[in-house]
Formats: sequence, structure tokens, C-alpha cells
Amino acid sequence: METLRPLAVAMGDPAGIGPEITAKAWKARELHSLAPFFAVGDERAVAAVWDGPVVRIQDPEETADVFPNALPVISVADMGEIVPGSPDIDGARCALQSLELAVGLARSDAAGALVTGPVSKAQLYGVGFTHPGQTEFVAERCGISKENAVMMLAGPTLRVVPITVHIPLAEVPSSISIDLIVAKARVTARGLYRNFGIEKPRLAFAGLNPHAGEGGAIGREEIDFLKPAIEQLRDEGIDAVGPFAADTMFHARARAGYDVALCLYHDQALVPLKTLHFDDGVNTTLGLPIVRTSPDHGTAFGIAGKDEANPGAMIASLRMAATAALRRAELSASGTL
Amino acid sequence: METLRPLAVAMGDPAGIGPEITAKAWKARELHSLAPFFAVGDERAVAAVWDGPVVRIQDPEETADVFPNALPVISVADMGEIVPGSPDIDGARCALQSLELAVGLARSDAAGALVTGPVSKAQLYGVGFTHPGQTEFVAERCGISKENAVMMLAGPTLRVVPITVHIPLAEVPSSISIDLIVAKARVTARGLYRNFGIEKPRLAFAGLNPHAGEGGAIGREEIDFLKPAIEQLRDEGIDAVGPFAADTMFHARARAGYDVALCLYHDQALVPLKTLHFDDGVNTTLGLPIVRTSPDHGTAFGIAGKDEANPGAMIASLRMAATAALRRAELSASGTL
Repeated sequence: METLRPLAVAMGDPAGIGPEITAKAWKARELHSLAPFFAVGDERAVAAVWDGPVVRIQDPEETADVFPNALPVISVADMGEIVPGSPDIDGARCALQSLELAVGLARSDAAGALVTGPVSKAQLYGVGFTHPGQTEFVAERCGISKENAVMMLAGPTLRVVPITVHIPLAEVPSSISIDLIVAKARVTARGLYRNFGIEKPRLAFAGLNPHAGEGGAIGREEIDFLKPAIEQLRDEGIDAVGPFAADTMFHARARAGYDVALCLYHDQALVPLKTLHFDDGVNTTLGLPIVRTSPDHGTAFGIAGKDEANPGAMIASLRMAATAALRRAELSASGTL
Repeated sequence: METLRPLAVAMGDPAGIGPEITAKAWKARELHSLAPFFAVGDERAVAAVWDGPVVRIQDPEETADVFPNALPVISVADMGEIVPGSPDIDGARCALQSLELAVGLARSDAAGALVTGPVSKAQLYGVGFTHPGQTEFVAERCGISKENAVMMLAGPTLRVVPITVHIPLAEVPSSISIDLIVAKARVTARGLYRNFGIEKPRLAFAGLNPHAGEGGAIGREEIDFLKPAIEQLRDEGIDAVGPFAADTMFHARARAGYDVALCLYHDQALVPLKTLHFDDGVNTTLGLPIVRTSPDHGTAFGIAGKDEANPGAMIASLRMAATAALRRAELSASGTL
């Protein structure tokens, strides 16, 4: 049995709900059997919204001793004043430094996995952040190209992968190619094995058009791109099926038929996921040398500091990160990662 | 209190599950307090899948006497052999004639409302049907242009309207206009008043792009079309809000904030609806001089004749049709329809 190193939680924007959900997750550590973790960020952001015990640590190794009695925090900041619900440039700098440090600790194996709290991209752009999101930033820091880093959203009853992400809907049809679909699917299949222990994952593809194009009557992308890509994947031994009409893929009986739904654009994947799992969805990145998860929601500045934030998605992110990290440590020890 | 004339149920393709769900709905008439209805189609299709009582009638007026003890059927056919699960050209002809007759009975007020069972468009095209679906056929027979007939899908916790329907996704961005959005929204608002008794319905619009375009960073349709359309609707006194990021519009708390979600394309509307209400979704047409509903599922030839069909959506369609027809009769009597 491998031992799990403590998980690193980058708390995200200090004015958002990140510090609150991190603290609430720590408070619920026994109820949810959470593996030891430490937070990275400004501990004053925690103190501003929570009156529980916090202990500043210097090294992830201190986590084991501190975690049973207090939330361990590696401090990055002391920059400016923190007002929950009022983001500013100092907070964005703190979020970026927290992320950078937490990624580094995970990369160096000092942390067992990386959990990233919610950030405001608008704020981050103000401090020189140039990536579309944290996923791309983490991938770059890990030396992985963006085609080979796959964003997967997962809730208790559904996993989805959007093959294209933050592009206008009008650009989706021209952005799809057989190569892109195959590349994303390969990383997905491998990630489900490495992080989730699914030996031969079942991949179901959504069509682009209504009714998956009705045999070409309502669009040809299914015929031109999806069918050849699926055929190629099957030739490689990957259990890929579809394309299916997207609207009949996400009810309970349909979901039982696959391990992950591969969708062609952001909302095709995110609408069913958030309809079903708004409060406990996890965003995870497959294809990285580290395990990375994130609660699938934003900074929620509007409720920050009001003790209203639901830690469900953070708790789910911590649990998924621990399970995946442990599994990868075992695969690594047996030489099969 | 107005009296409700019997509802007409066009049973759809005789080889599909339409006859079975019609019979099962009749059987559950007391449990669900269903208003009297008669079926239109080939009664042999019912006998092929059900051993309950069926009585052939000539006139909708006979329904009241027959309905308590048997399923009343107005027969259109005796064309060819009926094999559940094996659609053929005779069955398509029967489905089309059933639809035509049932529409006529509703138009002439002999029936209180029209409920249409599932048909196979592929089969119907073989007998000269040229419409994209039953919705457009019914609209034409009612003398309503397709812009003014609005397809709404409704389940117990969600109503959605797709502003464009059966077109390739690539054509969606160029098919959207302020006029189209405004026209569909007006009919929707009026229909929710006339058929559902909602005095001032709250209309929520989904954006086209991820995160509703993020202020133009990921697409401009929200700025160019949706915002001006919503402004125009508000000027007309319609409670229109949005555009919102589609992925955060359909969880339970979000759904509580509106009466109907207006979506820009087929899957944006149908994915959340069928994810939540696969077995009890109703397709209804707003903007018609008659009330028309339909179970929101297909012919399901694969399970026809196996006693596996779930009548939930048919029952929901009958209940919605009766409620809407009664409400319109009352509005009509008071001169406010």
C-alpha cells in the first residue's frame, strides 16, 4: 500500500469563496474521510470568513502533524487588504502565486496532487496571466501541449469531456477534425485508466447536429469527422461508440451505458453536467504528469464572506484527487503507470 | 365552468409504441384523473399489443358514453397487416390520415384538443409528407406561419423553447436575428398566458456562446442579437431576462427563477429537458388556434409490442392538453382569449 503525500489546495482568489470552502472542507474532514491537505494562499483570507483553527506551515511535511487539529496553510502573500466579495489586483497576484507554488509542489512530489480553487480570469489578466484558464496554465507548467491536456468534468453520475472549450459557437464546426477528436479521446481513455482505475473505459460521442445529423440530412460532421474518428479509435482498441443524438444521451438509463461522454463544444458538455451536478461537479485535467482537480464553480464574489458557500464541490475535488493520486502511486510502484 | 370536449389522440405510426401508450393511458384514466379522450387510428394496432376493451366510434360525441368502459377509437384504416416494430408504407399512410383527421376534429371544435402520438418521419416522407415534423404540419393546417408556431417542450420542472430547431449547428449563428427572437418570444409569452394561465410569464434567454460570450470575448451574438431583442421585449412589457450562460441555467435553483428558457438551438433546449424529463416530457405547440400536445419521444420501434413502453409522457400530454383546453374555453367564454 502506497502512502499518499498531502494534497495541495491553491485557494484561488482571496476575495472569492475559495478560502471559505477550503476551511469548510477541513472542518468536514472526518465526515468525508478526507486525506490530509494543506492550503496555499493568504491565511488572512481564511481568518476573514472563518473562526476555526489555522496554522501556518513552511513545508508540506508538517501537514500530517497539523491537519488533525488545524487547517495547515503555506502563506504566499500579505499583499494588501482582503475584503471578501471585493476582488482587487493584490488578490489576483496572491491567487496566481498560490497556483504557481502549488503546481510546483505537486510537480516536485512534495504534494500528492493539486486542487485549485476558483479564480477570476478577468482579475488574473490584470496581473499578466495570458492563459484561457487554470487548466492551460497547469498544463504548460507541466510541459504538456494543450491538445494533450484534457479537461474532464465529473459528478457522481456523469463524466463529460468538451473537445473544444472556450471558443465562439460559430467556430466549433470548423475547429473539429478527426485528429483532434482522436487525440482528446486517447488522453481521456488513458486518464480514466490511470486516475480512475477503469481498465477499458467506454467512450460515448455526442453528435454535433440535432438528432446526430439524421444520416446527413441535418449536417455532415457526424459522417465526415465523428464516424472516422470513432472507427480509428476502435482500431486502436479503445471502446468508442456513437455518435449519438446529444439530447437522448444524458438521462439516467443512457448514462449507465458509458464511462464518459465526449462532447464537441462547451455547452454540450457543461449543460448536462451542471444541470445534474451543480453543487458537486469536479473539473479535472487528464494527460498531466500530476493529478489536478478543481471544484467546477466560480469565485462567487456575490456570496463571499456570507457563510453561504457550499463546500460540496471542494470536498468532491479533494476526494477525487486523493483517490486518483493513490491509484497512480500504486501503478507507479508496480511499473504500470 | 366550461365543459371540455373530448380530446383527440392521433395514435401515430401503428407499428410504433403509440397504440400501446394510448391504451395504457386509458387504463390509467382514473389514477391520473384523465379527461375523456378518443383515439384516431387503426384499432387493430391497439388489439395487436393490448387485450383491453376497445370500441369503435363514428363521432367524438360518443366518447362520453364509451370512455368509462372502453377505449373509444375512430378508425381510419384497415390498410395492410400490422406488425409491431416493423413500420411500412401502409402504416405511414395510416399515421398521416390519423393526424389529418384528428387535426380537423380539433379545428372544428368536435375535439377539445389534439394530442399527437409518435410518427416516423422517414416513413412519412415515403407517403408524400413534406414538413420537417408534425408541428409544422399542424401549424399549416391551422393557417399559421412557421415563425408564429412555437415548439415548447415541458416537463414537471422545466419548460424550454428552441428558437431554431432542425438545422445543422453550423447554420445556427447565421439563422439568428433580432426579429426571429422577438417573434418567438412574443408567441411564447402569449401561449404561457393562454394555455398555462401564467399572467406575466418570466422568459429567460440562454446565450449562444460559452459563458454567454463573456462580454464579447467569446462571440458577439449576445451583444448583437440577444441583448437588443430582450430590450425590445421588455419595452413591450414582456418579462424577458438574460442572456445567461447556458450551463448555469438549468440546475434546480436556477430553474426556479423563470417560467420558460428560450434557447437558440435544438440541443441547447433539448439536452437539459431530456436529461431531467426523459420519461415525462411534453412537446406542445404555442401560437395555434387549437391546443396541441405530444409525448416528447419517438416511435421506439425497438420495443414496440413488448409491453415495455412507458405511458408517462402520453399521460402528461393528455393532462396538459385538458388543462390548456379548459383554460382557453374559459378565456374564450369571458372574451379574453
